[in-house]
Amino acid sequence: MKIFVLGGDGFCGWPTALHLSEIGHDVTIVDNLSRRKIDITLEVQSLTPITPISQRIDTWRKISGKKIKYINLDISKEYVRLIDIFNKYRPEAIIHFAEQRSAPYSMKFPSTKRYTVNNNVNATHNLLCALVECNLNAHVVHLGSMGVYGYGWSGSTPIPEGYISVKVETPEGEIPREILHPANPGSVYHMTKTLDQLMFAFYTKNDNIRVTDLHQGIVWGTQTEETSRDEKLINRFDYDGDYGTVLNRFLMQAAIGYPLTVHGSGGQTRAFIHIRDTVKCIEIAINNPPKKGERPQIFNQMTETHKIKELAQLISKLTGSKIEYLSNPRKEADKNDLVVDNAQFLALGLKPTTLSEGLMEEVEDIAKKYLDRIDKTKIPARSLWVKS
Amino acid sequence: MKIFVLGGDGFCGWPTALHLSEIGHDVTIVDNLSRRKIDITLEVQSLTPITPISQRIDTWRKISGKKIKYINLDISKEYVRLIDIFNKYRPEAIIHFAEQRSAPYSMKFPSTKRYTVNNNVNATHNLLCALVECNLNAHVVHLGSMGVYGYGWSGSTPIPEGYISVKVETPEGEIPREILHPANPGSVYHMTKTLDQLMFAFYTKNDNIRVTDLHQGIVWGTQTEETSRDEKLINRFDYDGDYGTVLNRFLMQAAIGYPLTVHGSGGQTRAFIHIRDTVKCIEIAINNPPKKGERPQIFNQMTETHKIKELAQLISKLTGSKIEYLSNPRKEADKNDLVVDNAQFLALGLKPTTLSEGLMEEVEDIAKKYLDRIDKTKIPARSLWVKS
Repeated sequence: MKIFVLGGDGFCGWPTALHLSEIGHDVTIVDNLSRRKIDITLEVQSLTPITPISQRIDTWRKISGKKIKYINLDISKEYVRLIDIFNKYRPEAIIHFAEQRSAPYSMKFPSTKRYTVNNNVNATHNLLCALVECNLNAHVVHLGSMGVYGYGWSGSTPIPEGYISVKVETPEGEIPREILHPANPGSVYHMTKTLDQLMFAFYTKNDNIRVTDLHQGIVWGTQTEETSRDEKLINRFDYDGDYGTVLNRFLMQAAIGYPLTVHGSGGQTRAFIHIRDTVKCIEIAINNPPKKGERPQIFNQMTETHKIKELAQLISKLTGSKIEYLSNPRKEADKNDLVVDNAQFLALGLKPTTLSEGLMEEVEDIAKKYLDRIDKTKIPARSLWVKS
Repeated sequence: MKIFVLGGDGFCGWPTALHLSEIGHDVTIVDNLSRRKIDITLEVQSLTPITPISQRIDTWRKISGKKIKYINLDISKEYVRLIDIFNKYRPEAIIHFAEQRSAPYSMKFPSTKRYTVNNNVNATHNLLCALVECNLNAHVVHLGSMGVYGYGWSGSTPIPEGYISVKVETPEGEIPREILHPANPGSVYHMTKTLDQLMFAFYTKNDNIRVTDLHQGIVWGTQTEETSRDEKLINRFDYDGDYGTVLNRFLMQAAIGYPLTVHGSGGQTRAFIHIRDTVKCIEIAINNPPKKGERPQIFNQMTETHKIKELAQLISKLTGSKIEYLSNPRKEADKNDLVVDNAQFLALGLKPTTLSEGLMEEVEDIAKKYLDRIDKTKIPARSLWVKS
């Protein structure tokens, strides 16, 4: 299948592009390298050494014999070129990772709030608008976020996959309906994913675009089968206060003997998924497109939930690291429960990588191996949700 | 009160600015004159002759003795200047009309879809972001649209004001909740108003911004008490296929002996409000702000509903015009019922202008008076929701 991976140079995009190429798809990466450029601005770098995109692709060709194309293009701005490449290549599936994906970065400055909204909304809308203009019947697989939901109706009720059944109270009695789960985002970044949902709903209704929206949990781990075949294929490992995700930050902290930094009580429960399962989920989603005219198909792309504090304790036990409790820069409940329905991916064959499996491998093979690349001044989380 | 009217040169903005000035507020219009510039591109003009903004404001000063300030600024793009004027003037209320407001225009070309999304989303988000950055506790009064709702749950159930009571079905039984009415927009324009809602919800929650969102029906009529005091103060009357609203188009068609153009069966029911009531509603909204930390306050700003066909028949009876049924360029149900709850504005003292009241005055004083300015080639509605 001809597949475009928008944002195919990023943390989820790169391993996805390799995996889809490995299983035989004709993959084109479309990326403006914005993630690398934000690193430059933030004066930080991936813990793992990332080669230039052309070197990544050349290495993949040498290792696998497979060719990935690469187009440098900003889909949020270069609409005319987007039309050109859609008409030239006519992709059958489009994986859309091309959004600013850090919640702390989206709350850091007015400029980063505005960049996140402008970039993410226009990226998604340009994509949809271009599909209509090119009369292109490609299946859009979009990376959403578990953060669109907030934390559900009660601690013990599972968050359903996208839609909820309700009875609407009216003067004429209760009317049963299935509706999109109400949005309750916790950051400007997560808010943009809720805006995406409404754009998908409109364009599926008006133009019969086929969309699958994947509400992903927090990704942990670094390598997939494909990225581990050569050091030049290695995936990003972000450890800084903005782009580092909580579990990878703990692993890095454990490796260098830095205390595990828990923000707030640690009673916050989050949903997780290993990067290896992310790429499998994308593969499954591509193989199971919705029909034309159907509402957006929504899957919850996560495999387990954990309280932050318990994760810290687990890693502390494995590594002997101390735990340090810091004030929480986010505006959120001090603790929450979280149960998530992910029945659809399980039914379609996903075999989850459980959290304990690869933890020490991450500490040894990634965090310890590259610890000379760490800038400890970049570890603290400095983006505040509300300025004091 | 110090009030900014964003989009204060437009069809709703200008009479609102005059009315707020008349009742004693210190009004500043912020507008990039985009509505006038779109007229140039579409090669069309308001039926009524619109004087340059400075002449409008000078005339108002001479007539009323009151001074309105004017700042030419694009809030969707000129963020730094927006910050400067917020800090300089510190407005206490901000009326936000600064969005592209035509549904047909928003569906006309890929470029107009993209402009509508980019302009409207960034306008609203820049405003919210700037309020936070300037630590400005101004009450935001935003013009939303009845179109965010679709047409409700059943033909006879009133559309509530913003929020609905539901019972969420969960494995643990039904959980009662009040949630934002699900979004069901019928055009890219209406979709942007549903995106606005989610941005308001986030910024009220995270930053305690005070927001009132007014879901307005289709405006009819031209003049308010203030705009009718001098011809140089006259309000816009759009009759073209993109910006002309249905009732004003019928009035113009009646005046020139053109058939009343009904698109589709005419069984579509719409909500209406007179421009005189629009300005009263804004006054009422300003006087009744929500508290800090409250969710967005939502009012339905309409006074009556009518089927399109019945409106055509009413005007046909008054004027002798013929009715012509054309194919419907929109993707929508051929007929719908519509009942709308507007209890809040009525309780706060709104005395609606009913539709029959000013109809013939519009035909005689506006449409007939300026009929030499009509370009009949601009009457047909040519923007298609789905290209054939």
